[in-house]
Amino acid sequence: MAAFRLDQSLAEDSIFVVDLPLCQVRLENDFRFPWLILIPRMNELVEVTDLPVERQHQLIDESRQVSEALKAVTDCKKINVANLGNVVSQLHWHVVARFESDAAWPGPVWGSGEARPWPQGERDRLISELLNQLVN
Amino acid sequence: MAAFRLDQSLAEDSIFVVDLPLCQVRLENDFRFPWLILIPRMNELVEVTDLPVERQHQLIDESRQVSEALKAVTDCKKINVANLGNVVSQLHWHVVARFESDAAWPGPVWGSGEARPWPQGERDRLISELLNQLVN
Repeated sequence: MAAFRLDQSLAEDSIFVVDLPLCQVRLENDFRFPWLILIPRMNELVEVTDLPVERQHQLIDESRQVSEALKAVTDCKKINVANLGNVVSQLHWHVVARFESDAAWPGPVWGSGEARPWPQGERDRLISELLNQLVN
Repeated sequence: MAAFRLDQSLAEDSIFVVDLPLCQVRLENDFRFPWLILIPRMNELVEVTDLPVERQHQLIDESRQVSEALKAVTDCKKINVANLGNVVSQLHWHVVARFESDAAWPGPVWGSGEARPWPQGERDRLISELLNQLVN
């Protein structure tokens, strides 16, 4: 099987968190939102429906794991999940913790203002707390 | 089992298309985008993760059916799928056909400008073509 290739802009705009059985989980480098991205570690995928059916089920299973971890860690009001891919075509799945006080509420996070990079301490703490939820 | 109750604003802003085994499929009344909404016909759901796991798989299966029907009928560039629910809490799943020429490309459709109601002829033709894909 060909090595997994991550789109360059996804790589640059996000930070590695963990590899789940199907997806690489990354943290969007935007301190305004606790925002995770799941990228199935298979090449040449664009649409969710490009995945074999059992992998679509696995994607929703890993999305559930990540959603529950993010909710537990952030105590957010709502989880937003989506595949858009209008700009970056490589299949990636967003899981975003939303708050009534956040910079885009109640609108979507995509295309909303300018990203603010995570301060290192907050970033490391969030990733550590997420890993505690995801790996146990 | 209690009768399925549809949120009033979902009902007012969209048009019934078909009931699949899990979800009611409705067309968002916005001529700018071929935009379907899947609402699991169960009450008291907010997050995707509120569904039992096997129903989450069924949701992604019905999302696939609807995505493939919408792609076949519209020949769109990309399908966008999402659950946001920041405004209307009843669990609903968006499946939107996107085009490089559409009114929001490459941004998200949610919160983008003012909806334009479907002209009756175009609306009926789209629904008819979708039903041909979904029911056969």
